[in-house]
Amino acid sequence: MRHRIAAVSAAALLTLAGATGIAEAKPASLYAPSAVVLAVAQGEDATTVVRASALSCAPTPQGTHPDPKAACAALTATSGTLETLLAAPDSDRACPMHYDPVTVTADGVWKGKRVSWKHTFSNGCVMAATFNGNAVFAF
Amino acid sequence: MRHRIAAVSAAALLTLAGATGIAEAKPASLYAPSAVVLAVAQGEDATTVVRASALSCAPTPQGTHPDPKAACAALTATSGTLETLLAAPDSDRACPMHYDPVTVTADGVWKGKRVSWKHTFSNGCVMAATFNGNAVFAF
Repeated sequence: MRHRIAAVSAAALLTLAGATGIAEAKPASLYAPSAVVLAVAQGEDATTVVRASALSCAPTPQGTHPDPKAACAALTATSGTLETLLAAPDSDRACPMHYDPVTVTADGVWKGKRVSWKHTFSNGCVMAATFNGNAVFAF
Repeated sequence: MRHRIAAVSAAALLTLAGATGIAEAKPASLYAPSAVVLAVAQGEDATTVVRASALSCAPTPQGTHPDPKAACAALTATSGTLETLLAAPDSDRACPMHYDPVTVTADGVWKGKRVSWKHTFSNGCVMAATFNGNAVFAF
């Protein structure tokens, strides 16, 4: 008998909690949002964006990126520190030394934290050699 | 006969142009890229993002936003000045004065230019009243 009373009380409390909930509060999502806009721009200051991809990685990889699954896996591998995308360049590739800068940017949200990352390469060959096949900026 | 020679020459020239093209240059897209990550965060500093949507508006509206078409139309109406989203609040709506700040952010690229916008509302009711049904942050 005590159990039944306890159960009823719990249900009554839940109903009460629901009725008095703050009207404006929307439920937070069950996963931390991860969505970024990846862009490739000409020049040093990223003002003229040539290509851009929208990518969402939670709950599932999707977006205008040509390979959302691979790009999300590669971003997850950085643990949010996008500088690590530069860590495995193709050491066998030689690039011309001419200066024709290309700037890549990643802006948005990663695992619930706002992110903004930018890196300038001296030319497109250096960019390709540095990313070395990484999927994130392969669009 | 002169026509045929001219046609062959044109084809030869095109082939030559293709063969001598700069190897690293990718063609720029035919449209200026427009892609943003829209986020709603608790607090003043946008560090804890509660909800986020990826939205691409070129060449077609798409993304994880629940209504990409309406959101892209609303963004286009701002001409890239996102502050105009605040310009048509619902003047009939009353909001409590309690301080429970909500910060919205939009980061990415709009018509080939990098954009980053942030605005803090004193609470969720003020946010809803200010956006007044605008589709951009309706997710």
